[in-house]
Amino acid sequence: MTIPRVPRVPRPGPSTRARVTEVNRGQIKERRDDLATEEPLEIRVQAGGKRRTLAITMRTPGADFELAAGFLYGEGVAGEDDIAAIGYCTDADVPAEARYNTVTVRLRRPRLPDLPGLDRHFMTSSACGVCGTATIDALRDRRPPLAPASGPRVSHETLSALPDRLRAAQSVFGKTGGLHAAGLFDAHGTALAVREDVGRHNAVDKLIGHVLLTGGLPLHDRILLVSGRSSYEILQKALSAGIPVVCAISAPSSLAVDLAREFGATLIGFLRGERFNIYTGATRIV
Amino acid sequence: MTIPRVPRVPRPGPSTRARVTEVNRGQIKERRDDLATEEPLEIRVQAGGKRRTLAITMRTPGADFELAAGFLYGEGVAGEDDIAAIGYCTDADVPAEARYNTVTVRLRRPRLPDLPGLDRHFMTSSACGVCGTATIDALRDRRPPLAPASGPRVSHETLSALPDRLRAAQSVFGKTGGLHAAGLFDAHGTALAVREDVGRHNAVDKLIGHVLLTGGLPLHDRILLVSGRSSYEILQKALSAGIPVVCAISAPSSLAVDLAREFGATLIGFLRGERFNIYTGATRIV
Repeated sequence: MTIPRVPRVPRPGPSTRARVTEVNRGQIKERRDDLATEEPLEIRVQAGGKRRTLAITMRTPGADFELAAGFLYGEGVAGEDDIAAIGYCTDADVPAEARYNTVTVRLRRPRLPDLPGLDRHFMTSSACGVCGTATIDALRDRRPPLAPASGPRVSHETLSALPDRLRAAQSVFGKTGGLHAAGLFDAHGTALAVREDVGRHNAVDKLIGHVLLTGGLPLHDRILLVSGRSSYEILQKALSAGIPVVCAISAPSSLAVDLAREFGATLIGFLRGERFNIYTGATRIV
Repeated sequence: MTIPRVPRVPRPGPSTRARVTEVNRGQIKERRDDLATEEPLEIRVQAGGKRRTLAITMRTPGADFELAAGFLYGEGVAGEDDIAAIGYCTDADVPAEARYNTVTVRLRRPRLPDLPGLDRHFMTSSACGVCGTATIDALRDRRPPLAPASGPRVSHETLSALPDRLRAAQSVFGKTGGLHAAGLFDAHGTALAVREDVGRHNAVDKLIGHVLLTGGLPLHDRILLVSGRSSYEILQKALSAGIPVVCAISAPSSLAVDLAREFGATLIGFLRGERFNIYTGATRIV
């Protein structure tokens, strides 16, 4: 894969300086603060000389190519062998400050894939209506469930150590207090990669995109930890990448639990030190 | 406004029972648990005999009409006088379990409004690209900034009391630990309405939709408190409804601060008891 020349303009960073008035028990102090940067990212796909905007997401700048790749992978648009190049916008008619907010993914295909819409996996048809079961069925059409005996065996001790390791790797959170994180770990709890973003789904996309671009998919022996809650969207992305063990610091939603159960994944919630809940797939926890 | 007959099928509630294996310092206990329900909601608009799906969002069932109304309001699709009726799906060809996941808003208009896409307010044009400044400009086209001297004056004591009042009203969070909340308060800190959802943007839509449907917009003398972080999306919805003071328990993003400053709103972050940060609009805090 070749990465085209990037535009030479100031590039937004993951954090932004700001002035803040801090109030503490009536004491008022002016100080400088770091905010988590939030900027829109337009994700375009290109093939056969045609280009299409697939999504605009609010994200924290950094790992934008990984975010675009992971997003396309999670949506079923592009697999490991489909990406020819990823680059920032270099169009002369795009203002300099917007060029780092547009990423184009060039596909190794004669033409653009059929993209019936980003909410495709939520939809069945306009006649059938939407429901949780239909969304699970739609994902099952794309990915087979995990084999019950597959994936790593993870000890209580390993699980309990994950949150501190995630936090230790969250460089921008430490400054801003305002970012979600997603971390990928091996079965012994070693952190392999951690990504941060104002959107928790973006943090997972960045992580999976990173693995995709470095040839590491599927992730059948890995553990995912997200800093917040687990929802349908987090599980959908994790299961698309073949991750068998998904952990979250906070609560799962009902649909996250349903999806994990249907796909044979292990779902851990409220992972806080030596206390955690196992919602599905307890056989992988030893 | 008339509310049509709703389908007679089991209706999903805001929480869902599940079995969970709780691990605490090596002690293992099986117990029942309550999960925050997550189900898709399809929001349709109807006018002049035509119907269109505008969005599918993952949400916690409950206050679905408010969610649909608030969403349409925040997107600039429908104002206070535009909604003729809101109802669940009654189509015979929609499976019973999906009917409560589809809400149709009938507009008092001869035809469907021009809806160039849900990311409309993020977009400028495909040539111009996207950036934070452009998203702020797009909102300014729809809403004037607040007058600097407008809105309530709020004391430190009032602000400090808000988080406990929000938590006290979070009935489903108490059971599940898995829901965001948005609360609307008057200048004295009295809670006027609180809504919960797995998505924080949905909680704000439900709250503003509630006010819209009861004829209370705009909210020029109110305070909004959200349980998590404040982002572009939260500010965009709050400013659309005219709310001059926005508070969050956690951090703001850079774009949330930019948007609040540009629109003359007061933005409070890390509101935790007697400690909080004022990012913009400090003159309203006394």
